[in-house]
Amino acid sequence: MRNVRILVAYDGARFFGWQRQDGFESVQETIEEGLEAFLHRPVVVHGAGRTDTGVHALGQVAHFHVDTPLDDNRLRRALNAHLPPEVVVRALETCPAEFHSRFHARGKRYLYLIWTDAEPSPFVRGRAWAVRGVLDVDAIRRAAAHLVGEHDFTSLASSGSPRRSNVRTITSLRIVRRRNRLALVVQGNGFLYNMVRTIAGSLVDVGRGRTSVDEFAAALAALDRSRAGPTAPAAGLYLLSVRYAEPCFAARSAPARD
Amino acid sequence: MRNVRILVAYDGARFFGWQRQDGFESVQETIEEGLEAFLHRPVVVHGAGRTDTGVHALGQVAHFHVDTPLDDNRLRRALNAHLPPEVVVRALETCPAEFHSRFHARGKRYLYLIWTDAEPSPFVRGRAWAVRGVLDVDAIRRAAAHLVGEHDFTSLASSGSPRRSNVRTITSLRIVRRRNRLALVVQGNGFLYNMVRTIAGSLVDVGRGRTSVDEFAAALAALDRSRAGPTAPAAGLYLLSVRYAEPCFAARSAPARD
Repeated sequence: MRNVRILVAYDGARFFGWQRQDGFESVQETIEEGLEAFLHRPVVVHGAGRTDTGVHALGQVAHFHVDTPLDDNRLRRALNAHLPPEVVVRALETCPAEFHSRFHARGKRYLYLIWTDAEPSPFVRGRAWAVRGVLDVDAIRRAAAHLVGEHDFTSLASSGSPRRSNVRTITSLRIVRRRNRLALVVQGNGFLYNMVRTIAGSLVDVGRGRTSVDEFAAALAALDRSRAGPTAPAAGLYLLSVRYAEPCFAARSAPARD
Repeated sequence: MRNVRILVAYDGARFFGWQRQDGFESVQETIEEGLEAFLHRPVVVHGAGRTDTGVHALGQVAHFHVDTPLDDNRLRRALNAHLPPEVVVRALETCPAEFHSRFHARGKRYLYLIWTDAEPSPFVRGRAWAVRGVLDVDAIRRAAAHLVGEHDFTSLASSGSPRRSNVRTITSLRIVRRRNRLALVVQGNGFLYNMVRTIAGSLVDVGRGRTSVDEFAAALAALDRSRAGPTAPAAGLYLLSVRYAEPCFAARSAPARD
């Protein structure tokens, strides 16, 4: 059996998240059904991480085991031919048998996209958080600087499933403004449940002047979810890439373009 | 009765064009039904021009007559509340009784968007023409220069309905490249049926080296549709703005942002 790793982009708007759930259309199930359609046997696809309902990906990573005479390139093309246009396999390669997309992931990079135009657009629907009013980007940048480094992020995560520790390291957080779009690009060794969306919601509160930079820093230190801002909508969140130490994947897990 | 003019953006992917047709969902009918839903009487909406199935708009203009106590701002909000997210009324104003969105239009501006990345993306689906391979943008620019000015555009229009004259004036045609996107922004006093899409298809033939710049110029001069390139897909075409001489509209028909 070959251990095959894929790099996947998807428009999350029509899916109830990555993970298979009975009765709800998921990305995982869509890929599994695409594989089964031409391999004529069930295949289980393991993702590097779950994404929630409505969350997008430019560089999700997953792996599965198959036995097929198709080479990597043909297998990728056959799979794409059996997927809806909302899901695209950007790259596919056969990896060492021990590779596991989730256990070997060393970090992830996310984009959170905010549309700051006062006017709605039919073209950003489901693909960004539309925020009304003027945001103080300088204040957002100063608040964001408090997040970089190793911290206990209890204040910025939904409770969800209990974890041993809420300490994570954010290695970089860039705020990029271009015309009426504001992009938060955040990279870290791991993220708690809803953490990027809560960061986005809390930073927008700072940008709106509802929270000062000092209050934001104090909320982070308080280790209390009720002190931080709201969870921003799923539509603005994109999983950009998953980082691995193994050379097999490092090269192809490059950040997605644009 | 008030004569109301609207500036409309729509994602054309789900519509069978602008114009009302029995049994097919059109943008015109969608707006008419939105108005009827809260005005409780039928309203006919007249557009500045038809757009085909799958064609988008950032600045379509239309007008209709209504009798309502709502002021312009409230009327716009009420209408938007009765439209699907694919259609957004960006501006609304009451105009002189004699204003007609189509008869008074002096020109239009279109964007044709080409995605030149070798890799498909779930996010440009239905919103650009995905072209494989490398395009010679310099050759495209040199060919495009032949189109600017007054010409008989018979070679670059689908036959469609017969017209008195196929002479039109293109006042500007800009080619903008940004990473893996190529945008054609064309402005003129009027456009023949499928003219912008045929321009896009023919210029891509030049960019691919299938047609030389000289052959392109000769095809334009030949006044023969069969000499030019293919009609590019509807998905890449956006009506950006409609130009009017009347001061009532000129200010708000500004080019749509990004």
